[in-house]
Amino acid sequence: MSFSEHLQSIVAQVDGAIACSVMGFDGIAVESYQAESNADAARELELSSAWVEFANLLSQLKNAAETLKTGQVAEVSVNSEKVITLMRMVNRDYFLVLALLPTGNYGKGRYVLRVKASEVGKEL
Amino acid sequence: MSFSEHLQSIVAQVDGAIACSVMGFDGIAVESYQAESNADAARELELSSAWVEFANLLSQLKNAAETLKTGQVAEVSVNSEKVITLMRMVNRDYFLVLALLPTGNYGKGRYVLRVKASEVGKEL
Repeated sequence: MSFSEHLQSIVAQVDGAIACSVMGFDGIAVESYQAESNADAARELELSSAWVEFANLLSQLKNAAETLKTGQVAEVSVNSEKVITLMRMVNRDYFLVLALLPTGNYGKGRYVLRVKASEVGKEL
Repeated sequence: MSFSEHLQSIVAQVDGAIACSVMGFDGIAVESYQAESNADAARELELSSAWVEFANLLSQLKNAAETLKTGQVAEVSVNSEKVITLMRMVNRDYFLVLALLPTGNYGKGRYVLRVKASEVGKEL
């Protein structure tokens, strides 16, 4: 399965999914996929700017985890007024990010990302 | 209800809760409450160091939200190997933070924090 197919499958499985991406901690997306049905939301939210910002925070969290006693970070979610953002670590260099409408299926999103992170990790 | 009573009520309602705190974005806790049953976990995890780090990140997220199109941040969760950390904004200056065991009730934690954030907000 290509990255694009994985991302497409994530978006298809989660109600309210707007877009999904495999990203590096440097904020550069390896591959992205956008739900056609929520294309307006994706444009309006300017997700790529938000994701660069979140990648930066995730990178800081990952580095902080080395000195903290709480262990490696596996998952981070940021729920804001207009979008829910779920991020799941794939390995030391990459993570999956999924944007959902505030009405989207948060639980299913977390589940699908967890399963897919391990599949994508094998292919990176 | 005092802050301490609110925090105690949060910890009592959520299975696997370790500790809960009302914190400022400067990383200083206004009030904290620790579950007696999970005192070992709280000590081992050195939660106060982690929370100072998370407060810093939350503060960056809050500032970033002003330039992003995704709206105000309402809730952030960081799931690491040894602890789940839920954070819920109370107002511009304060947030609630709840630490759960990885086996804790994540959904109930989110729900209780949302309800309590609005109650605590009225008293700050």
